[in-house]
Amino acid sequence: MWYETSLTKILNIRLPIIQAGMAGGPTTPELVATVSNQGGLGTLGAGYMTPEDMRKAIHNIRLLTDQPFAVNLFIPETVKLEEQKVLEMRHTLQPFYDELGIEQPKLPTEWGGQFQQQMEVIIEEKVPVFSFTFGTLDHHWIEKLKVNGTIVIGTATTVKEAKLLEEIKVDAIVAQGSEAGGHRGTFACQAEDAMIGTMALVPQMVDAVNVPVIAAGGIMDGRGLIACLSLGASGVQMGTVFLPAIESGANPLYKKSLMEATEEETTVTIKFSGKAARGLKNAYIERLSDVPNVQVPDYPIQNALTQPLRKEAANQRKGEWLSMWAGQGLRLAQSESAEQIIQRVMGQASQTVQKLKNIEKD
Amino acid sequence: MWYETSLTKILNIRLPIIQAGMAGGPTTPELVATVSNQGGLGTLGAGYMTPEDMRKAIHNIRLLTDQPFAVNLFIPETVKLEEQKVLEMRHTLQPFYDELGIEQPKLPTEWGGQFQQQMEVIIEEKVPVFSFTFGTLDHHWIEKLKVNGTIVIGTATTVKEAKLLEEIKVDAIVAQGSEAGGHRGTFACQAEDAMIGTMALVPQMVDAVNVPVIAAGGIMDGRGLIACLSLGASGVQMGTVFLPAIESGANPLYKKSLMEATEEETTVTIKFSGKAARGLKNAYIERLSDVPNVQVPDYPIQNALTQPLRKEAANQRKGEWLSMWAGQGLRLAQSESAEQIIQRVMGQASQTVQKLKNIEKD
Repeated sequence: MWYETSLTKILNIRLPIIQAGMAGGPTTPELVATVSNQGGLGTLGAGYMTPEDMRKAIHNIRLLTDQPFAVNLFIPETVKLEEQKVLEMRHTLQPFYDELGIEQPKLPTEWGGQFQQQMEVIIEEKVPVFSFTFGTLDHHWIEKLKVNGTIVIGTATTVKEAKLLEEIKVDAIVAQGSEAGGHRGTFACQAEDAMIGTMALVPQMVDAVNVPVIAAGGIMDGRGLIACLSLGASGVQMGTVFLPAIESGANPLYKKSLMEATEEETTVTIKFSGKAARGLKNAYIERLSDVPNVQVPDYPIQNALTQPLRKEAANQRKGEWLSMWAGQGLRLAQSESAEQIIQRVMGQASQTVQKLKNIEKD
Repeated sequence: MWYETSLTKILNIRLPIIQAGMAGGPTTPELVATVSNQGGLGTLGAGYMTPEDMRKAIHNIRLLTDQPFAVNLFIPETVKLEEQKVLEMRHTLQPFYDELGIEQPKLPTEWGGQFQQQMEVIIEEKVPVFSFTFGTLDHHWIEKLKVNGTIVIGTATTVKEAKLLEEIKVDAIVAQGSEAGGHRGTFACQAEDAMIGTMALVPQMVDAVNVPVIAAGGIMDGRGLIACLSLGASGVQMGTVFLPAIESGANPLYKKSLMEATEEETTVTIKFSGKAARGLKNAYIERLSDVPNVQVPDYPIQNALTQPLRKEAANQRKGEWLSMWAGQGLRLAQSESAEQIIQRVMGQASQTVQKLKNIEKD
């Protein structure tokens, strides 16, 4: 069984399911390759990876699958270092570092330089699909990608952003609804003005652009897949559902927390990275909220300030200090292999279409 | 053509579409009756109506249709009057009242007493369907409604709230997603913890309760209807789509603003009524946001303090001071009659199911 949509055609895949490029560890080559082998599109979340690690991971994916896969990167922004804010945040974070018994990190002297090298890996490796978030992509990269035959997917959280992406000639656009876990892809307005639910966002975006729209946010099973195809999407991007997968590299504490959480237990916070992202509420977020007038430096500065804290918290099994990105569909998360997830989603999808056929009467 | 779901069966209607019980004027007897005559379920939004006006409106609806219709009421809460807050808010609102040239209102000495009388009208008039929001309903009312054969529909914004409503034996539950316009129905947690997108909320609620779930929030056309049926809902409740309808009693300025707005232009605010509600951003909300440390009295106190202001602003055609409740699907709003809306939605729904049949291949 396979599905035919404008997305499956351009990606040359059998099922309109993209596994989201979740940065920071979950997207192992095993997860990416399994999703692609099952007929979907696996994505390496390479936002935080060094060019060398990216290249290794891409080679490993290619050892495991001959099917199309994607690599996802973050578009860098101009970094505005406000020294006073950084000093105050270091003061706020010091008790966390003290409890863990480690030193605070030095900040890099240069920001965003890695992106150029990451993009060179994408070009040199001729990856089948390249997806990005946090902005638009410079024309010269788009040209090089097109020469390679790489399919290019951008991320939008509003109709306006989708139109900006269409202008730079992406091949498809992810419509990231407010339910989505992880970082908000918003780049053309304030994040709080772009919290549009998937149900409302997808049809408005579909009406506004001529490229395939990929729905993301709160989609956890075959019911969600068919719902999004109904709205006019040509496919879905699912993240949270793959986090507890056996092949996922997410920390075991993170997987356990996901399986126990409900739809009420996520929040959108800038406190981990300086950029709005949806994750499980926990003690770290609460403690920072208790600091009067706490000012969070912008992304990626705050991310750099908290990164060693989160890494060491994972080592010391302090789940309450980890950034546990998660969408709002949590009660539907299941502990399965990636293959079981895809099979279950497609089985539910078929049942859903069957059910719809019986609802309309003459 | 008609649809058969668990909801259409218990409501004895042909189409799984409920027109939301928007309080404050939009739900004229003409709008309610037209929706019901078309095969959906019209709803009188009677939350702010006097018992006498309710009775008149119910009689007028019955003159226009012999089909089932609903009446919606607000469950009253214990009112905690904080005098200092009220004084400060009166001070904040005084410039608005001065500009309009009217006096601030006296606050009632008693709150919520009207609900008992409103419920007596519901019982005496034996309305076919009773829906409510902002809480659960006392057992003695449920018993009286069931004796009358009235179908009872509650409103939930989380799975936990849906379970509480199932316990008091409602016949169906509206799952109000974060996209929805108007007041949040949240009653078992803070409103900000219950901003769950429709795509995520509906399937989780469907899995958790045994009564029909009605999806609400961001549904504006037949694509949204089929999407929600895919998620397991037995029907949809649509509000914003009916606001610009010819039969709607919404202020012409309000209708015009809706037709011009985009998905980025709503916000959730407590500044009009003291309770979180989604509506168009405007100058009133901005001016109150500019007041340092502004404290908003709880609902329904703030509602009483601003009600004459909004009424007179409408008279003086100051749209920037009106509460213009709206969901996030705004770009899909069209100026049509209620009959055209229903016909369009059902036509799109049929096309959507046809399209889905062609996506799956063997």
